[in-house]
Amino acid sequence: MLKGYTLPRTPRGTSSLVQTPPWHYVGASLAVEFEADPSVAASFLPGGLELLSGRCAVYFVEWQYASEDGEEYLDPIRSQYRETIFLLSASFEGTPVAYCPFIWVDQDVSLMRGLIQGWPKQIGSTWITRAYDLPSKATPVLGPGGKFGATLTARDRRLVEAQVTLREITETMPSPGFARAVNVRYFPELAAGKHDTPAVHELVQLKSRDVHISPIWKGNATITLFDNPYMELCDLRPVSVIAGYRFSFALTVDDLVLLRDLRG
Amino acid sequence: MLKGYTLPRTPRGTSSLVQTPPWHYVGASLAVEFEADPSVAASFLPGGLELLSGRCAVYFVEWQYASEDGEEYLDPIRSQYRETIFLLSASFEGTPVAYCPFIWVDQDVSLMRGLIQGWPKQIGSTWITRAYDLPSKATPVLGPGGKFGATLTARDRRLVEAQVTLREITETMPSPGFARAVNVRYFPELAAGKHDTPAVHELVQLKSRDVHISPIWKGNATITLFDNPYMELCDLRPVSVIAGYRFSFALTVDDLVLLRDLRG
Amino acid sequence: MLKGYTLPRTPRGTSSLVQTPPWHYVGASLAVEFEADPSVAASFLPGGLELLSGRCAVYFVEWQYASEDGEEYLDPIRSQYRETIFLLSASFEGTPVAYCPFIWVDQDVSLMRGLIQGWPKQIGSTWITRAYDLPSKATPVLGPGGKFGATLTARDRRLVEAQVTLREITETMPSPGFARAVNVRYFPELAAGKHDTPAVHELVQLKSRDVHISPIWKGNATITLFDNPYMELCDLRPVSVIAGYRFSFALTVDDLVLLRDLRG
Amino acid sequence: MLKGYTLPRTPRGTSSLVQTPPWHYVGASLAVEFEADPSVAASFLPGGLELLSGRCAVYFVEWQYASEDGEEYLDPIRSQYRETIFLLSASFEGTPVAYCPFIWVDQDVSLMRGLIQGWPKQIGSTWITRAYDLPSKATPVLGPGGKFGATLTARDRRLVEAQVTLREITETMPSPGFARAVNVRYFPELAAGKHDTPAVHELVQLKSRDVHISPIWKGNATITLFDNPYMELCDLRPVSVIAGYRFSFALTVDDLVLLRDLRG
Repeated sequence: MLKGYTLPRTPRGTSSLVQTPPWHYVGASLAVEFEADPSVAASFLPGGLELLSGRCAVYFVEWQYASEDGEEYLDPIRSQYRETIFLLSASFEGTPVAYCPFIWVDQDVSLMRGLIQGWPKQIGSTWITRAYDLPSKATPVLGPGGKFGATLTARDRRLVEAQVTLREITETMPSPGFARAVNVRYFPELAAGKHDTPAVHELVQLKSRDVHISPIWKGNATITLFDNPYMELCDLRPVSVIAGYRFSFALTVDDLVLLRDLRG
Repeated sequence: MLKGYTLPRTPRGTSSLVQTPPWHYVGASLAVEFEADPSVAASFLPGGLELLSGRCAVYFVEWQYASEDGEEYLDPIRSQYRETIFLLSASFEGTPVAYCPFIWVDQDVSLMRGLIQGWPKQIGSTWITRAYDLPSKATPVLGPGGKFGATLTARDRRLVEAQVTLREITETMPSPGFARAVNVRYFPELAAGKHDTPAVHELVQLKSRDVHISPIWKGNATITLFDNPYMELCDLRPVSVIAGYRFSFALTVDDLVLLRDLRG
Repeated sequence: MLKGYTLPRTPRGTSSLVQTPPWHYVGASLAVEFEADPSVAASFLPGGLELLSGRCAVYFVEWQYASEDGEEYLDPIRSQYRETIFLLSASFEGTPVAYCPFIWVDQDVSLMRGLIQGWPKQIGSTWITRAYDLPSKATPVLGPGGKFGATLTARDRRLVEAQVTLREITETMPSPGFARAVNVRYFPELAAGKHDTPAVHELVQLKSRDVHISPIWKGNATITLFDNPYMELCDLRPVSVIAGYRFSFALTVDDLVLLRDLRG
Repeated sequence: MLKGYTLPRTPRGTSSLVQTPPWHYVGASLAVEFEADPSVAASFLPGGLELLSGRCAVYFVEWQYASEDGEEYLDPIRSQYRETIFLLSASFEGTPVAYCPFIWVDQDVSLMRGLIQGWPKQIGSTWITRAYDLPSKATPVLGPGGKFGATLTARDRRLVEAQVTLREITETMPSPGFARAVNVRYFPELAAGKHDTPAVHELVQLKSRDVHISPIWKGNATITLFDNPYMELCDLRPVSVIAGYRFSFALTVDDLVLLRDLRG
């Protein structure tokens, strides 16, 4: 009897790349809201979703993770990773949702947890300014005038640069926000003749619980999406930038809801 | 209409992590055959497979890849990766097959192609001695007396060290060989109550075509599997080492055969 | 006229790996004090230093850096790095100092700044638990009972694991501390016959200014130094562990003092 | 008595980042010759060198290294690295030489050996197409029509892309070639007031022995140097591209010649 929530499944089940949910997360994020061309944004949506507006958000997050009893953060290479998430503003049967066209992480464990949730994860290198609570030219203040930057690079090409200058505390999270994410779970077939008929193709609503949010700093932002010969991310280039944010949050994931089977 | 063989699926379909098969591979490998404790080896087999013997093989491979028209090797970070593959000797309904309990690669594109084929891939760092056809103390000869090494490290822990000293040309590939690999395709559910009932759980027979093999060098070998607090690989520790090999090979993959649905 | 504080020196001087001092640093650290065999510790000291005691300390630090006008933290891959520093308790002409036998960083810019200061830097992979100020199973508390871990790996071999459980605030920094570091600047010759007579071989006292320290948390600790075929670090294996610490600090460097020319 | 050719110097001397010469190297390279603006190229030369012509060359090399008795290639992470080298055509007292304005490697051991030779090394990520001697869409032929690519990325920004299509065997190495390299050894002071007066500042002639060259394939080439906010490499942008090359070579280094002390 092999055990394990994912491959590799083994006699004792301790080797599995991803542990059985619940999955506990805490992260520090830099976020930028911007407007993309609505017709372009709409072209990235899967069946079942309608475009709500051209408003997009990108989140750069420095995460720490633990399974239920794992204390993975004591061997932190098993726990920490950085992520860049793009979200579009969509609706499902009239309800506003967020849809993720692109996401990059820097650890395989996170990539696999993401695929199971329908996040279209790839490996990429995210860097985010940190704030230290000491006076130094080497750190911005987490307060008015504090400047933060973030970059994303994948397969040795820089894809994104962003910068945020904080101004004030706000009560409002950036929008679209990933608490409302609707994803596509997708697992292809390899058997000849079936390359276009995936084994799994589902529109799903993510669920999270035990959500906690730090104070939310807001300010001005800039963002650049660089040309790339393959990656269609640059098609979502901003027509205007709305605002930037800095905040932390925690959440737990162990469930999702199937909205629609998209096969055939 | 979103396009792409895998996530992310996009309007033009050029952003997909994995391109539609066929997938063309060429690799240079160092391999070691060894005997593990048969009762331990048997405990790693999935339903449907029987142990044939305690004979195992590990392959360290330096790969280059291209899709049908992709010439990915001209932007080689998209094409090259290194891999460590362990194989056990099993049988399916009386036919000898190879089963992979553990495999590590160093690129996300390869990890995703692997999951689709049922390889239980994780990210790991593989290093393999190269042979250059010039007289130098910096290279072994690809011939009698040439010494080659390989190592595997994952999540900052070294897992495997191997060394091979070449002696002679042979006509015989190492065994078990991955031309006969039988894998488990596995994609879990996240919806509450379904964590133990995967969406996909299939025993599959890999198929490859257009296989080409270089001359095969054979010799003596040593191999060490290091203790690890999570990874059950060390349970397959050799009771004896049989032989080592150095050779290159090419193959194309665009099909597989479903042997058995393992759900329920 | 080429410009630049280090190679590469170029027409405009913006390409130089290291910018002209001052160098501003801020870091979050996990530290462990331990006792090594005094006769072994003494054997690691350079000419001019005497052993004070067998007391050692290791610091794992997550740094952010900026040059005088650089704001490198806005392109954070230019600014952030992680470091593991070992220190021995020594004295120079009767004054207590700290001497660093081994240190690892993960960015070339830091490696080069280090060589100029006499830190014997190599590239290594350091991971350190982070504390987030939110309730989550994914983070320890920065307070009584909070558990933190750190690891160091170099050339794909794990060298160090440490763990600290916080108990109380203290007024006292760990000892030996790197404010008192005495280093050896060393730059060899390559000309034949001169391989043993370096161009630079100096005992130097580091200087730092604008030092700021956060509250210092103290508690119990464990540490393991793993065997390694080349790296003599494991000879400093603890005979006892004294305490663990968690704190942040900031400092600026733009000077040092030559204590003694060690050539000839 | 501490031992070691470089820091860290230790009781047994086995921990030193770089081993005592001789250093044995073997490498497979892709090279491109091009013409830069001569006045720009001249502005990159150090004191003592005159510009010979605007002809430049870039070499992308996949190296394997060993010290005299080290067999480092059996633990290949200690031996293998990839490098991108730019060379300008200069003369010293009427003799043609090559001068390197920029060079990137991906291992600290190579970076340190380089600094000792006066190579202005930084860490960067180089990728180079490989040729396998098997029929496959995943590899070019090492022969007429074979297409090879190479890329360089540093600090998450792509700096260079090159492509070479082979046409014929030639007897002539690309020019400028690094057998004739003249470098600047440079080690700064950190003591206040001395930031502009380095401890070491020497014009040196590299020496190599036991040089072996494979057959040299030549053909057409393209090369792109990307804009970068700091790195002046893009100022050397080609005005025309001359030719591309593919070949391997071996050499041993254990000496150099001081041409001129550039201090004061």
